[in-house]
Amino acid sequence: MDIATRVYNHKWKIDPIVRSLIDTDFYKLLMCQSVFRNKPDTQVTFSLINRSTHIPLADLIDEAELREQLDHIRSLGLSRGESTWLRGNTFYGKRQMFRPDFMEWFEALRLPPYHLERRGDQYELTFEGSWPEVMLWEIPALAVLMELRGRAVLNRMGRFELQVLYARAMTRVWEKIERLRELPTLGIADFGTRRRHSFMWQDWCVQAMREGLGKNFTGTSNCLIAMRREVEAIGTNAHELPMVYAALAESDAELAQAPYDVLSDWHDEHEGNLHIILPDTYGTQGFLDNAPDWLTSWTGIRIDSGDPVKGAETAIAWWRARGEDPRSKRIIFSDGLDVDKIIELHRRFDGRVNVSFGWGTLLTNDFRGLVPNDALAPFSLVCKAVAANGRPTVKLSDNPEKAMGPPEEIERYKRVFGVGEQERLAVVV
Amino acid sequence: MDIATRVYNHKWKIDPIVRSLIDTDFYKLLMCQSVFRNKPDTQVTFSLINRSTHIPLADLIDEAELREQLDHIRSLGLSRGESTWLRGNTFYGKRQMFRPDFMEWFEALRLPPYHLERRGDQYELTFEGSWPEVMLWEIPALAVLMELRGRAVLNRMGRFELQVLYARAMTRVWEKIERLRELPTLGIADFGTRRRHSFMWQDWCVQAMREGLGKNFTGTSNCLIAMRREVEAIGTNAHELPMVYAALAESDAELAQAPYDVLSDWHDEHEGNLHIILPDTYGTQGFLDNAPDWLTSWTGIRIDSGDPVKGAETAIAWWRARGEDPRSKRIIFSDGLDVDKIIELHRRFDGRVNVSFGWGTLLTNDFRGLVPNDALAPFSLVCKAVAANGRPTVKLSDNPEKAMGPPEEIERYKRVFGVGEQERLAVVV
Repeated sequence: MDIATRVYNHKWKIDPIVRSLIDTDFYKLLMCQSVFRNKPDTQVTFSLINRSTHIPLADLIDEAELREQLDHIRSLGLSRGESTWLRGNTFYGKRQMFRPDFMEWFEALRLPPYHLERRGDQYELTFEGSWPEVMLWEIPALAVLMELRGRAVLNRMGRFELQVLYARAMTRVWEKIERLRELPTLGIADFGTRRRHSFMWQDWCVQAMREGLGKNFTGTSNCLIAMRREVEAIGTNAHELPMVYAALAESDAELAQAPYDVLSDWHDEHEGNLHIILPDTYGTQGFLDNAPDWLTSWTGIRIDSGDPVKGAETAIAWWRARGEDPRSKRIIFSDGLDVDKIIELHRRFDGRVNVSFGWGTLLTNDFRGLVPNDALAPFSLVCKAVAANGRPTVKLSDNPEKAMGPPEEIERYKRVFGVGEQERLAVVV
Repeated sequence: MDIATRVYNHKWKIDPIVRSLIDTDFYKLLMCQSVFRNKPDTQVTFSLINRSTHIPLADLIDEAELREQLDHIRSLGLSRGESTWLRGNTFYGKRQMFRPDFMEWFEALRLPPYHLERRGDQYELTFEGSWPEVMLWEIPALAVLMELRGRAVLNRMGRFELQVLYARAMTRVWEKIERLRELPTLGIADFGTRRRHSFMWQDWCVQAMREGLGKNFTGTSNCLIAMRREVEAIGTNAHELPMVYAALAESDAELAQAPYDVLSDWHDEHEGNLHIILPDTYGTQGFLDNAPDWLTSWTGIRIDSGDPVKGAETAIAWWRARGEDPRSKRIIFSDGLDVDKIIELHRRFDGRVNVSFGWGTLLTNDFRGLVPNDALAPFSLVCKAVAANGRPTVKLSDNPEKAMGPPEEIERYKRVFGVGEQERLAVVV
């Protein structure tokens, strides 16, 4: 036993869930740099949204503990080693992905205040301030809520019961990995930071994926794990960019243009495998139909809502219609994946297009069925930009279950983007 | 990381499998004391017998490694703390179970030489010398062979593959324990030292049993684990006593008397829950039919071969015929148990008699089906007294598959003990 380590650990007042500002998704940092350059003064509000309203978060999580964890995150600053890694590491084949002016700002950053209030059996948790600062709350806030809810269950368990719980969860992850080994041309990354069971568990999953899948494991979205385990940091961009750009639009014409403005800014900053279109914010079909020609040269499309087969077929048909060879393009699936769906999608699209997978919650938090009342099963918790410069944001996506925003604004967006009837699909995580 | 511990561990030339003279079964020490008192000068030969001849031990285990492990065992002496524990601990409710003269002898003991030779794809491993010394080789020799055979498989596995192997094995043990929790009046002990997967694994199983079963877990046969984990050390006596006593008999009349002589010596030394009859060495039915009246007052009977239901019914009928109330008696099942059989036997006999279980190999080494070719599955390896003062020993038991000795001697014993046709039952472990 290492006595000093044990004594040191017992000196912590809390067991912090998030211990680093780069314990977050890589794409958050890419987007943050883009926002820092293009829209630094935008004032935004991010808000927690529990889409699984049957999970009474405020009954399960002690408010004081939640505040302690969030306060701890506010105390975090970029460490020297983290800064050196971000400045010097190669990301997507490129050195100095993060520019010196952004890094100087990031090195001085502390996360802004949060607003927390109990409302019935749920928490209202919001973050307000300048976009590049506030946006960095999303991932750690979600990770804290997910893990605190889990800890309440784990605290009641015995030592061996816990060991067996993790033994079962490990076995399950490994059995999934063993099935994925049957796909020799697979390319898959960990996208599971936000709704993970815990940091240590995500770290274990990444290492198991690396040992089990070898080069077919392409990396992790988690920067801290990527740095420590020396694997690729993976990620491109997310819905918050078109959502905020759209909210800032002064007219319907500007609104219709907003999603392309996002990618135009991105186009100038990035290249190659970072040129990935996320087309579903206001409906994939309309987005692609009206896309400018320069977008057809982009490397790929990420499918993050709706029926993934339909989404991928739409993308392939669009490339073909625009004279592009889909076999030179990439499709990244990232919505609610588990091993059956991964295998099915890979078998269906491998060879027709380059296929990648961003595997999230059901990689890093599949504790379904392992404790009574399924009290460790993951659920659909998100933290989204809900307003920008005082105006509400809207998301439609290719699944009305994932839509958000005031009803009258949703109707306006549907009209502007020409979105008709959509297939309604259950959202598990 | 504790640097000093890591450096210290790397200084070991080998990773010793047996690190203590009390990493052995408690009943070995009880029997050793009895032999030390009653038959100290008997010269015996113990020999390894691999009943699973399809397992080519000499191909699987490197001879040099085996010698290193056996040599290490010969370097072991009783530590001061181990001696203090044996002298001062309460065993079966009694202090000073081990007499000062025995302890002085034991404290000075080093195990005698071994003889090892490769014969085809098997090893011939024998131990010769005075009975109280040689008999202590049995358990560590078996544990070394079992674990070396396992290590050859484990050495080829990756880090996470190993972790998942143990995760699966832990889950399996825990699921067995969860099923045993359904029996509120269960009494069960670990008897799994000799054919365990490894010491650390047995130690884990004992702790899991303690957490999972609480007071229904009655202890372990392993003295080192009993000492370290502060649980009861469990065990009474084994076949080697009647086998050697029988081999020493000068006539058929003395032979017929030998099994009772063993228990007569035992009767003088012990009482209560140590008064357990092991009746099957030369056939249970004959043993009980011809038993002297004082044996009916003994506490219980251990069933270690043959159909356990039949064995228990025979015991109950015997007690009834001798005017004893079976509900005041104890039956200990210890032959090839796994959870289904334990539940079945408990349900059948609980209430009619006090029931206990000594759960061995399928508690501490159930790695069946967890690696390719089932290369970690336990098998039937024993180490037995094969000669005493130059005469061969014989064991019949209630299952001809477990019989041993020269054929003509087996026939003589069958005649002397009146053993007729026996039911042949497969021996797994």
